[in-house]
Amino acid sequence: MTDAQALLPVAFASILVAAKVGGDLAERLKQPAVLGELLFGVLLGNLDLLGVGWFREISTDAAVRGLATLGAILLLFEVGLESTLADMRKVGGRAALVATLGVAAPWILGAAVARFALPGRGIEVAVFLGAALTATSVGITARVLRDLGRSRTREARIILGAAVIDDVMGLVILAAVTSLVRAADAGTSLSAGGLALLLCKAVGFLAAALWLGQKLAPHLFAAAARLRGQGVLLATALAFCFGLAWVASEIGLAGIVGAYAAGLVLDKVHYRSFTDRGEHHVEDLLKPLTQVFVPVFFVVMGMQVQLGALASPGIPTLAALLIVAAVLGKQACALGGLGSGLDARSIGIGMIPRGEVGLIFASLGLTLTIGGRPVVDPSLYAALVAMVLATTVMTPPLLAWSMRRGGPGTPLAAEFPAPVAAEHPAP
Amino acid sequence: MTDAQALLPVAFASILVAAKVGGDLAERLKQPAVLGELLFGVLLGNLDLLGVGWFREISTDAAVRGLATLGAILLLFEVGLESTLADMRKVGGRAALVATLGVAAPWILGAAVARFALPGRGIEVAVFLGAALTATSVGITARVLRDLGRSRTREARIILGAAVIDDVMGLVILAAVTSLVRAADAGTSLSAGGLALLLCKAVGFLAAALWLGQKLAPHLFAAAARLRGQGVLLATALAFCFGLAWVASEIGLAGIVGAYAAGLVLDKVHYRSFTDRGEHHVEDLLKPLTQVFVPVFFVVMGMQVQLGALASPGIPTLAALLIVAAVLGKQACALGGLGSGLDARSIGIGMIPRGEVGLIFASLGLTLTIGGRPVVDPSLYAALVAMVLATTVMTPPLLAWSMRRGGPGTPLAAEFPAPVAAEHPAP
Repeated sequence: MTDAQALLPVAFASILVAAKVGGDLAERLKQPAVLGELLFGVLLGNLDLLGVGWFREISTDAAVRGLATLGAILLLFEVGLESTLADMRKVGGRAALVATLGVAAPWILGAAVARFALPGRGIEVAVFLGAALTATSVGITARVLRDLGRSRTREARIILGAAVIDDVMGLVILAAVTSLVRAADAGTSLSAGGLALLLCKAVGFLAAALWLGQKLAPHLFAAAARLRGQGVLLATALAFCFGLAWVASEIGLAGIVGAYAAGLVLDKVHYRSFTDRGEHHVEDLLKPLTQVFVPVFFVVMGMQVQLGALASPGIPTLAALLIVAAVLGKQACALGGLGSGLDARSIGIGMIPRGEVGLIFASLGLTLTIGGRPVVDPSLYAALVAMVLATTVMTPPLLAWSMRRGGPGTPLAAEFPAPVAAEHPAP
Repeated sequence: MTDAQALLPVAFASILVAAKVGGDLAERLKQPAVLGELLFGVLLGNLDLLGVGWFREISTDAAVRGLATLGAILLLFEVGLESTLADMRKVGGRAALVATLGVAAPWILGAAVARFALPGRGIEVAVFLGAALTATSVGITARVLRDLGRSRTREARIILGAAVIDDVMGLVILAAVTSLVRAADAGTSLSAGGLALLLCKAVGFLAAALWLGQKLAPHLFAAAARLRGQGVLLATALAFCFGLAWVASEIGLAGIVGAYAAGLVLDKVHYRSFTDRGEHHVEDLLKPLTQVFVPVFFVVMGMQVQLGALASPGIPTLAALLIVAAVLGKQACALGGLGSGLDARSIGIGMIPRGEVGLIFASLGLTLTIGGRPVVDPSLYAALVAMVLATTVMTPPLLAWSMRRGGPGTPLAAEFPAPVAAEHPAP
């Protein structure tokens, strides 16, 4: 209610309008809504080129950024809720292989092109930029597969499983490269021992959060079920999510890793005392929140892009090279699908889109410095967002083409034939 | 995503836990949940007396205050949605009379006791403090009447109608006293003409917002219904609410006045194109948001209270006098019920609780200054919150006692006899 909050109403209203109009246009062009949200964010954030500096001010407002942070945490919580630990175990070895290949190749390629295009910056910056290319966006991929009516093929299951696994890998890598950058900033270099410790900490946190969470969640929700009042289930779920996000950030990981772990752990059986008495599921209660705040996150991320920065010397080349590295790198995933009778090409294409994790790398990079210079300066930020936009735009048409040529796909069960295939027989 | 956002996860998680545990305890003690939320906020905010300074830091964090602002705006939007313009017209003259008496008397009494207890401060401070006593909390009152099973008596309808009207009056008064304070700070005094202009602006805004809103809302929602994508109805309703909040603040009113007007205007028929195709009503979609953010507002308001400030010289006396003025002032409402066969005493008691509008006066007062000194300093803030807490605590038992002694109440229609009355016949 202070004057510092004066921008909030108009910022929130205009961001919501931009998100929904942008989302609508994207869907009409058969693109995922997130693309429209990002592009309308870029549009609003760059109105200062036309003399309207107002939205630039909004994009740096602490309260507005708070709403965007909320959106990022809620998004990863929701993504986590969509898969259970049992699902993760089921996808098994094949998805893990696809994911590992799809993380390693773009990381190495991305770091190489960054090293080539930015000779003046340190190796740490190249490693950081490469790491931003590692994680496939589960959300965008799942959306595209559903729109194609192919969610129930084995290819789809492997793509989604691998995307989930490389999300986790991406977050562990984020913790590692963040430490690398901090060490470089402190003038030291991260020893092999230090890196090993960090990786242990990240994997240890995930393992501990998943194990402890599974033990504690039933008790936590049973205790909460005894509280009177409204909205207790949603508040408990959110407190669980934000609590784990806090623990993750306290031990040096990104807060969203904790939110994701909270979503993975939380299962319908844990809050049965609520649903047994007729309350809605956490997913349903969460939907109005995510429908509002997740688009705010993407619009605000778009607003951070300074189009002028994209014109800095060398940046168009870097952006183009990063896009090539991002696309080619993920084709390593196809190797993981070879020799199994699966449509390997579609698996490689399905892994292309980058989204929330890439943006989170980009925005964290804005705040990390080496020797007083941000690891991701405005021009690198613009290049990374261009990579996210390009990989998101190209996937739906490419995947539709590949899946139609590749035949019916491998149905998970006989009762799910793929109806589109009959009209487009493989040559 | 910046380090400035690092506090958000732990702040949000702990505020939610405090809100739900506090709400639970209050309900077990047959008190409204808001009381527990405020008290637990006071508790958290004053842990620095025990050496834990952390929550004091949280309560001043810009991102956390942004969430509280969101809560205040959503609360007033929801309260506005609960009544329609038609309802307002139906309650008519009697409620307007009760409301006017109940605004004038506490304002004069409150300003008088502030003048007496704070001789060193200007007349503007006294007028501001008195104004903070004017508005009955619709939310708390409605909750208490429902818990007593008396929502459908004429007394209840008049109390609620008057509470709605004095909410609006309170917000107009807020605009007036804010200008008065700003004029005093600028070293000038507000001329009678200036005050008249301001009141015209406030009433004019409300009238224009209500009239224009009713004309525009159907078109706005019809256009929005053509947008593809998820969560369009909720986003449109929120953009409408926050847009009007912004217009209100641009013309010098409090943002919540606009949110309230948005709620009053918005009616189910306006978004029929959404509900006709099976979407939920705005009230249902809004509920998860208000259940999360409204308690955040009350907890954060509680956290602002510095208990140490309550011990400043003269402040306990001031707090006690403000409570007396708040309670006695509202008994003027009973005058409005005399000679109508209504239970006048219950009407007077039902108007006692102060809530959101009083807190909004208090928090705005923290940011207004006269000659560099805040109009509401921490000790006055603590006194005002004590007034809100005391009036909220005393109403449920007093009203239950009065309604039982006062007989069955006057049912709105013959088919709604008051069942409790038969067991407690009036003497």
